[in-house]
Amino acid sequence: MTEISGAELTIDLGAVQANYRTLQSHLAGAELAAVVKADAYGLGLGPVVRALTETGCETFFVATAAEAVQLRGSESDANIHVFNGPLPGEEAAFLEHALVPVLNSLEQVQNWSAYCTGIGAPGLADIQIDTGMSRLGLEAGDVARLAGSPELLQSITLDLALSHLACADQPDHAMNNEQLAAFEAGAGPIGAPRHSLASSSGIFLGTEYHFDMARAGAALFGLNPVPGNPNPMRQVIRIQGKILQVRSVDTHRSVGYGASHQATRSAKIATVAIGYGDGYLRALSNAGTVFIDSHEVPVVGRVSMDLTTLDVTDVPDGLLALGQPVDFAGPLNPVDRIAEQAGTIGYEILTSLGTRYQRHYVGGEGNSA
Amino acid sequence: MTEISGAELTIDLGAVQANYRTLQSHLAGAELAAVVKADAYGLGLGPVVRALTETGCETFFVATAAEAVQLRGSESDANIHVFNGPLPGEEAAFLEHALVPVLNSLEQVQNWSAYCTGIGAPGLADIQIDTGMSRLGLEAGDVARLAGSPELLQSITLDLALSHLACADQPDHAMNNEQLAAFEAGAGPIGAPRHSLASSSGIFLGTEYHFDMARAGAALFGLNPVPGNPNPMRQVIRIQGKILQVRSVDTHRSVGYGASHQATRSAKIATVAIGYGDGYLRALSNAGTVFIDSHEVPVVGRVSMDLTTLDVTDVPDGLLALGQPVDFAGPLNPVDRIAEQAGTIGYEILTSLGTRYQRHYVGGEGNSA
Repeated sequence: MTEISGAELTIDLGAVQANYRTLQSHLAGAELAAVVKADAYGLGLGPVVRALTETGCETFFVATAAEAVQLRGSESDANIHVFNGPLPGEEAAFLEHALVPVLNSLEQVQNWSAYCTGIGAPGLADIQIDTGMSRLGLEAGDVARLAGSPELLQSITLDLALSHLACADQPDHAMNNEQLAAFEAGAGPIGAPRHSLASSSGIFLGTEYHFDMARAGAALFGLNPVPGNPNPMRQVIRIQGKILQVRSVDTHRSVGYGASHQATRSAKIATVAIGYGDGYLRALSNAGTVFIDSHEVPVVGRVSMDLTTLDVTDVPDGLLALGQPVDFAGPLNPVDRIAEQAGTIGYEILTSLGTRYQRHYVGGEGNSA
Repeated sequence: MTEISGAELTIDLGAVQANYRTLQSHLAGAELAAVVKADAYGLGLGPVVRALTETGCETFFVATAAEAVQLRGSESDANIHVFNGPLPGEEAAFLEHALVPVLNSLEQVQNWSAYCTGIGAPGLADIQIDTGMSRLGLEAGDVARLAGSPELLQSITLDLALSHLACADQPDHAMNNEQLAAFEAGAGPIGAPRHSLASSSGIFLGTEYHFDMARAGAALFGLNPVPGNPNPMRQVIRIQGKILQVRSVDTHRSVGYGASHQATRSAKIATVAIGYGDGYLRALSNAGTVFIDSHEVPVVGRVSMDLTTLDVTDVPDGLLALGQPVDFAGPLNPVDRIAEQAGTIGYEILTSLGTRYQRHYVGGEGNSA
């Protein structure tokens, strides 16, 4: 097979495992479940789940039934919970694949109960309580109605009562305490045996937020759960592109689409084969920075679909050969930093990772060299 | 197989074919090549190329060698050109798979020439001239050197001289004429038998931009090549999510992460199972609009990974049931409009399309029902 030499995405499963252990160490007795929706935040459902299973993780959350069925195909023993719960018609798939639906409304409770009653088999389920996201979950009135009408839960075996914090990455935000109080008030009457409130950042709000289970996604994958403080998590991804060309550009020569960058001095411009088609967001035009060896260089001009242009005037020529690797993400430019440059959050940088990269998984027992 | 009912992405291959014919009708005798890099702009390389081949398209452009090898696997007869040209070590793959490299620098010319000389077989190649993008391609000095040193092209059989317009979507921009003049000045001395300058928008700048071949990507996939004027292209994609829940929200109740939206009236909020994990960009938070039947409704709160919240206060209750389809892209909200709401270009909306959608291909002979 002849050599093909494109941009590379390296995913450190050992770092994912280390992050799992770090988060677990904050939890005392509570279980740590892993959130692996959106293809494990873009990092690859199969390899990520295998690495987490090796580390002792037994419970996984995904968003949709389709994701859960895919996960069940490789993990016959895992506990798989589905945040969105069943859409009408999906109930059979939940039972067939032993998926635990999160029921987010009285209507979903009624549908699931009716389905399980109809086939004469009790079904496991979680109940989500909305404590402030106004997104999914039972409101206070729904909780009261459910608590007063046990027949609504006919044929349902409850597992978790859960909710979701809106501002957990801001520890001083008043909503955290309000949501905690609302969760305690709502979860009690429902009568579920286990409670879960915290995601990655919530773990760091204190033990009163831990209950029986925390559900970590972002922090497992290296995003900082405590913004403004040093990141306790290990970086998981590294992205390296290759220099295709370096050119000298005179003053007043424009760069890229729409001529959005104009050189203000004689400059050297390097073109690298990574673009927004790879998930390096177009918002990073004239805003992102990348690294050549230890040299930080700015993106100049608009990021295009397959190419990004860099001002490499201050980089030694020895580091500017055709094929020279350039770090678009890595030890010196973690995902959170790229997100800040792009005006978004690290989550979106991860889920945007494109399919053109040559993906390499390192670390983890299943990948030990 | 039990039913799974996620968000759906419908791709109209008949529209892609119609768009190919529309563009071709503007070209008189010039060939129309299709640009299918980045997985055919996110729409699926295999089905899109089959549909275009049915319509008579014979020449395809991709960005990288890896994309070209994938394409060659299904299209044994197509002419496949590779914009980035060979990185060091990739030369053998280009010959093995009969790929035509675009050579973007004298260094790439020299490497390709040396490789072809070494194995004793002449290699086809295109030459790119940089006429104003400052991204990839030979500069005027390089062109002069090449024209004066025919031995540099030893063992290379030239096909196209090509370049790329930076501002073709702005017909009155001075750069168009400047680039046209620079291209004519540069392409002549190189001696390639065929010339190509126009991409989608360039086709509409007039016949003097057409030369022997135009290379269309965006317009094939429904993006407007003449911004500010009615779009002559047919829409290709439709995205439909489903309502998971509708709730009533009182004044001063916040919605979503960071509590970024506050209701100013009693409102009904619908939550739909599409988020930035599906490529509905987070920049559409509090900015996008979607359609329920013919009712346009605004996105309120932050788009999250798997969910988007909508203000559906003015939508009749009959259209708000669990599972109700919601058009995130379609006839009433074309891709260019979504891009405008997100502060980007339609290209990025397309290449961001996620892998969680159930994809349906319609139209095209290979997909006729």
